[in-house]
Amino acid sequence: MKKIRNNKIEKIIEIIKKNNSFLITAHMNLEGDALGSELALYFILKRFKKKVIICNHDSTPEAYNFLPGHRFIKNEVGGKKFDVAFVLDCSDLSRSGSVEAKIAKQAFVVNIDHHISNTRFGDINWLEPKASSVCEMIYHLARGLKVMDKKIALCLYTGIFTDTGNFIYTNTTSDTHKVAASLMGYDICPHEIYRKIHSLCLPEDIKFIGRHISQLKFSSDRKICWVMISRWQERKYDLTEITFSIMRRLKDPLVFIIFKKVGKERTRVNFRSHSKIDVNKIAKFFGGGGHQRASGTTIAGSLKDSEKRVISFVSDFINAAKKRN
Amino acid sequence: MKKIRNNKIEKIIEIIKKNNSFLITAHMNLEGDALGSELALYFILKRFKKKVIICNHDSTPEAYNFLPGHRFIKNEVGGKKFDVAFVLDCSDLSRSGSVEAKIAKQAFVVNIDHHISNTRFGDINWLEPKASSVCEMIYHLARGLKVMDKKIALCLYTGIFTDTGNFIYTNTTSDTHKVAASLMGYDICPHEIYRKIHSLCLPEDIKFIGRHISQLKFSSDRKICWVMISRWQERKYDLTEITFSIMRRLKDPLVFIIFKKVGKERTRVNFRSHSKIDVNKIAKFFGGGGHQRASGTTIAGSLKDSEKRVISFVSDFINAAKKRN
Repeated sequence: MKKIRNNKIEKIIEIIKKNNSFLITAHMNLEGDALGSELALYFILKRFKKKVIICNHDSTPEAYNFLPGHRFIKNEVGGKKFDVAFVLDCSDLSRSGSVEAKIAKQAFVVNIDHHISNTRFGDINWLEPKASSVCEMIYHLARGLKVMDKKIALCLYTGIFTDTGNFIYTNTTSDTHKVAASLMGYDICPHEIYRKIHSLCLPEDIKFIGRHISQLKFSSDRKICWVMISRWQERKYDLTEITFSIMRRLKDPLVFIIFKKVGKERTRVNFRSHSKIDVNKIAKFFGGGGHQRASGTTIAGSLKDSEKRVISFVSDFINAAKKRN
Repeated sequence: MKKIRNNKIEKIIEIIKKNNSFLITAHMNLEGDALGSELALYFILKRFKKKVIICNHDSTPEAYNFLPGHRFIKNEVGGKKFDVAFVLDCSDLSRSGSVEAKIAKQAFVVNIDHHISNTRFGDINWLEPKASSVCEMIYHLARGLKVMDKKIALCLYTGIFTDTGNFIYTNTTSDTHKVAASLMGYDICPHEIYRKIHSLCLPEDIKFIGRHISQLKFSSDRKICWVMISRWQERKYDLTEITFSIMRRLKDPLVFIIFKKVGKERTRVNFRSHSKIDVNKIAKFFGGGGHQRASGTTIAGSLKDSEKRVISFVSDFINAAKKRN
């Protein structure tokens, strides 16, 4: 981090000190890092008596209602104008959804992100692809401003915690743990955060997942594991992730897939990888996208047809990858 | 930590330097912290050219076969004699099982533990109830000895990682993260460790768990959630923990229970708590024991009878706890 980061932090501190009104936004499909970094920055700016509005395209998922300040988050700013817009955790400005139109009117855009694919759309672009999360970056900004308290620490810890999958994902670094060590000094209870985010299910949700897990399907070499869901239950929390987390307990599969019927001739297909198999490429073949280890697409076709096409393609894809290595 | 700890560390360093042959052991039912601390200490002592044997009551669970040096672990020491015995992560000497008999013959016992209930059975007792794990303690010993390398770091990280449930449990402190930050400097890959420990299941295991999860039972107020298993599958890895981890996704229950038929008139009952309900007290009532949030017992009775007795007792126990608060 060091040099460039400190340089950018100093510039951002200058912008904060010189201006009075701020818009904060993040990407659509809000999660812990987007919300944690928005709210932490909100409380930081408030400590300097600034006018601040957080505005998001989506409403805040129930799971994050424990975050201090979540009630201040808006989905509309009316005709209000701002000196500066902070765009957090967005690789591209369009990721902010309907808020993009408000940002276009701003005098100055500060783009703070950790995605390697960031398009540098800001007037200032503070980009740290090696940071675990934007919350890890905002921590250093807060330190630069000599501001920290229990509320800010809770928001930042939550973002780091969720974006690293509790310090498990490959984005977890020594620096991440150093920041966590510092934040723990503000009376953080990781167990409580974990429970608030991950323990939200109703009995019928877990029974539903159980029924489908009991009918898992496997390719003959066990390298692909999938589940077929003909009637999907939409919830405010993510049953897809819970189902994948159980499938990930399996030893052999390299690719995990969930097929969901979402319309008469429409099938949602989510992919997860346990390995070097790049499921982003697989999803792209079917018109979707995502990341190397998590991707998805929607296919025009019945559940049965989609299963046939996708499993056949993934099987060939894995075999081709094997040959290359 | 500070003063007392440094005092004890200095004494232990002196003992290591003055002696030549060492026995290392830990508790029965080996897990990450026991094995990680044993192997880390083994490699530390080896750096000083000492004679070292690790001897355990139980054999090493398959999940930990990735730990360097696991092949050196024995279950028998023959007639060998040792200057010093290190007893790790044992609240009581009897927790070392059959190894206790070997230890009785030793000249000097070093008891290193983080359980608050430790009986101080050693000639030196280095006890740190606030440490997340014995591995966190051994880290400080290694630092005191100015010894650290990739193998030692991997063993220590694994113990900290497992004993804190990936930095989630309430034993996780700021110090824990500081130690993790330091160990991450030795090329640790938490994602790989997680996978090696937690992704071991066969298709039939996950389907088995799915079937039972789809038949979860709940008390009318949803505060108790349980599952009845009439034919238990014993595995080298822990299906009980996987089942509980899925049940823990539920919002309302305070107590989770698994009933397993383990004999004609014998039922194993495991309890987990999500809350302040002390399941150790519940297990004790039925002749078992454990911790506040995890306990178990074996009941002489059929699955059905045990269910009736236990659910009725737990229901009253929760109501009584509610009245007290």
